[in-house]
Amino acid sequence: MPVRLDEVVARFGGDLAGDGAVSISGIAPLDEAGPDQLSFLANAKYRSRLADTRAAAVILAPECAAACPVARIVTAQPYLYYARVAQWLHPLPRPPAGRHPTSVVEADVPASACIGAHAYVAAGAVVGERVVIGAHSSVAEQCVIGDDAWLAASVSIYRGCRIGRRAIIHSGAVVGSDGFGFAREPDGQWLKIPQSGGVIVGDDVEIGANTTIDRGALGDTVIEDGVKLDNQIQVAHNVHIGAHTAMAGCVGVAGSARIGRRCTVGGAAVILGHLSIADDVNISAGTLVAKSITQAGTYTGAVPFLEHAEWLKNFARLRHLEAMADRIRALELRLAELEKKS
Amino acid sequence: MPVRLDEVVARFGGDLAGDGAVSISGIAPLDEAGPDQLSFLANAKYRSRLADTRAAAVILAPECAAACPVARIVTAQPYLYYARVAQWLHPLPRPPAGRHPTSVVEADVPASACIGAHAYVAAGAVVGERVVIGAHSSVAEQCVIGDDAWLAASVSIYRGCRIGRRAIIHSGAVVGSDGFGFAREPDGQWLKIPQSGGVIVGDDVEIGANTTIDRGALGDTVIEDGVKLDNQIQVAHNVHIGAHTAMAGCVGVAGSARIGRRCTVGGAAVILGHLSIADDVNISAGTLVAKSITQAGTYTGAVPFLEHAEWLKNFARLRHLEAMADRIRALELRLAELEKKS
Amino acid sequence: MPVRLDEVVARFGGDLAGDGAVSISGIAPLDEAGPDQLSFLANAKYRSRLADTRAAAVILAPECAAACPVARIVTAQPYLYYARVAQWLHPLPRPPAGRHPTSVVEADVPASACIGAHAYVAAGAVVGERVVIGAHSSVAEQCVIGDDAWLAASVSIYRGCRIGRRAIIHSGAVVGSDGFGFAREPDGQWLKIPQSGGVIVGDDVEIGANTTIDRGALGDTVIEDGVKLDNQIQVAHNVHIGAHTAMAGCVGVAGSARIGRRCTVGGAAVILGHLSIADDVNISAGTLVAKSITQAGTYTGAVPFLEHAEWLKNFARLRHLEAMADRIRALELRLAELEKKS
Repeated sequence: MPVRLDEVVARFGGDLAGDGAVSISGIAPLDEAGPDQLSFLANAKYRSRLADTRAAAVILAPECAAACPVARIVTAQPYLYYARVAQWLHPLPRPPAGRHPTSVVEADVPASACIGAHAYVAAGAVVGERVVIGAHSSVAEQCVIGDDAWLAASVSIYRGCRIGRRAIIHSGAVVGSDGFGFAREPDGQWLKIPQSGGVIVGDDVEIGANTTIDRGALGDTVIEDGVKLDNQIQVAHNVHIGAHTAMAGCVGVAGSARIGRRCTVGGAAVILGHLSIADDVNISAGTLVAKSITQAGTYTGAVPFLEHAEWLKNFARLRHLEAMADRIRALELRLAELEKKS
Repeated sequence: MPVRLDEVVARFGGDLAGDGAVSISGIAPLDEAGPDQLSFLANAKYRSRLADTRAAAVILAPECAAACPVARIVTAQPYLYYARVAQWLHPLPRPPAGRHPTSVVEADVPASACIGAHAYVAAGAVVGERVVIGAHSSVAEQCVIGDDAWLAASVSIYRGCRIGRRAIIHSGAVVGSDGFGFAREPDGQWLKIPQSGGVIVGDDVEIGANTTIDRGALGDTVIEDGVKLDNQIQVAHNVHIGAHTAMAGCVGVAGSARIGRRCTVGGAAVILGHLSIADDVNISAGTLVAKSITQAGTYTGAVPFLEHAEWLKNFARLRHLEAMADRIRALELRLAELEKKS
Repeated sequence: MPVRLDEVVARFGGDLAGDGAVSISGIAPLDEAGPDQLSFLANAKYRSRLADTRAAAVILAPECAAACPVARIVTAQPYLYYARVAQWLHPLPRPPAGRHPTSVVEADVPASACIGAHAYVAAGAVVGERVVIGAHSSVAEQCVIGDDAWLAASVSIYRGCRIGRRAIIHSGAVVGSDGFGFAREPDGQWLKIPQSGGVIVGDDVEIGANTTIDRGALGDTVIEDGVKLDNQIQVAHNVHIGAHTAMAGCVGVAGSARIGRRCTVGGAAVILGHLSIADDVNISAGTLVAKSITQAGTYTGAVPFLEHAEWLKNFARLRHLEAMADRIRALELRLAELEKKS
């Protein structure tokens, strides 16, 4: 289990300064790592924290190397390097193949799959090699679950949805629930529009706990390869999320929004329906995106907070901004008049 | 399965222009429909999209009829017409009656009900005719589930809640969890207040995936007939939602709020506690409703977003609005003084 | 079941004015209570509502006593008094000990525990005395569940998490899902960082329906004693929440935020990552906390809402606040110039 520093460098590259024979048994943060642990410094602005570390060695960028009092692995991308070492040293524990006797499996499932206690796989579902389906998870009729996908406990996949290879889906996530589609009767009642589309989730997607992805009304909701969704995200019907886009917790995406590739969306941001977001757009936390974004860049709409009494005085003015602008315009006119006279 | 256009018009009305013998097998969006599919144009401002459609026929409003190059069904309300045809051509697939052998049913349940794998119906629950209870769903003691209600997989209904007829409740929804009620001890600790009320859900209500509805503290939380709740909505204890109100995803409604009939609430809006909202109020997405609304109308409080550098410059001013207003007032006084002199 | 008023006062204190022999059978709100029910007035500003009550007696503060037309129990803290009486008169119904035959229990569980239908307790878990594990709930390997904890239906606890004594965890809650941690490859792909830490939940914590608490990346996510979390709250990896802090529904807390003791966080507020919040801080509903708060107090950042047409005119100005400030500054300079001349 313990590995030598020179083994790490042989496997992942980087320049080692220090004793390659030192053995490490895991990774820990700078301020908690002990002499048998490796640590990392992802952000150069915190380099002063190096001084007190007790780690066996630190993964860091060239510009921080001089500040490091212990052995170090120097690399241009220390956070990525840390991720690679962590995947090697702390692999996710994967349950062994086999079907729990309480599971209900109505479809053909390969022997390499792990089907947990009380899990349910309906007739007509296709389950790939080495798939894990956790306790109390359900995979409905005609779903396709790609090789090596991993559903945690209590995941619900509605009929006919496709999940790509190596997906990780956390507890309470729901894929394929009905989109929110209704037509209004003249008397105000709502008539349900059948949601006849599906959900297509690409390869290497992660879906967080209690995140929901609705099926399309006509046509499908699409999550492309490599998308990462945090917990409690809501993805409405017919949304299209481009490859390698990442969204933080509590984001909401309304119907038919089309989001580009490699975007990042901060926590609790909201994207309204039928909008298009270009590739490589970053949305800040708490921002409501109410119109399309056609250029890559960072966009923000959150308001600053204040001590409550200050807030009362300042934010009440938001209701009178137009009047303030009118008064400025009136002042400008009167002043110009005076200046003409003087 | 395929139907003729004149069959559609015979059933749902409208004026057909074109060959009534044309056969259609389903509905598709304007840009995807093929020559055996019906399509629709719900919004007249997109009528230019008609030019390229390959649909067999299009459902549309009279003012768009002239722009349609293919057969058409003309009606005053094309979206409602589409919904009716879609319900007929794409009915929701309903599972057959019967109890899965792994279900646990401690109550009397009619033979017409469908109880899924590992579902649980506790003693004293009353389950109506043709009810569907999905895999891993639980219905606790003394609940009443109305005829034709449909619970998807992994729905949790706490003890004593009443669900109306034809309800549709999606996966992960929770009905009847404890309201958030605590009294504070002088030392800051919280003392739980028992939540002794229940939840009453009317007929024809739809509840989205992972939506939560808390039971009342004293008295009940009430969702009237025809209410439609999207995914991940939080309804706190003792809230009352009037008939035919619809809420989009991620809305939060705090305790004892009373919301009128036929309201619409946009995604991620928040309604604070103990407020009253009149009938026919529309709340825009992302709006925080912090005081009661007594008049029908549309209300909005969301902020626009900007490119990040622009946002920094503009939104920082929010902290100084009162100072800006003071400066305008001072300018007005000084200018009046000068004007008097000149 | 019915109790006499003088029994209430003998047990909980306060000053009784009225006939101690009157018998009450429960608690109800002022406007609903009948002559066999006790009621309470928590907020003195609503004292005018006392006039019409039909309650047998009212719990209230000294300054409201004179306005009460019926018997009364006078106490400095009527809401806390009400909570105590309600716990006594309306105790939460707790299911009896025993294992449902459909439960899967791979660990040693005490005879005093109640394990519900289809519940799952994995090998190596430690379950305390009198613990309730509801239908379809799962407790994974190496978890520790403290004495008297109560998991409702469909709760998911991932491997190795610790839940304190007397915890109440509502349906759909998830504890221990992976934190959202990824390093970005140069081509934009995301590399998963194993989430090797756990979750430690203290004693007397309540966790609402569909709330999610992620496990730490390195080190643990910590919820201290007495914390109360409402429904649909998202707690990211390595967050630390101090004792007796309470959060209302839909709050989001980003990674590594450190929140003090006895704080309150209003509904749908968002706390960004790596921030520190002092003890005794109150965050108003809908506030985005984007920097640390070092002083106790109340902080707010929500925007007021307006009738939509008014909103259009006023909130559009938010994009031009810097220009408005520039124009005020220019006016001040020109006016000073004129004043010099005159």
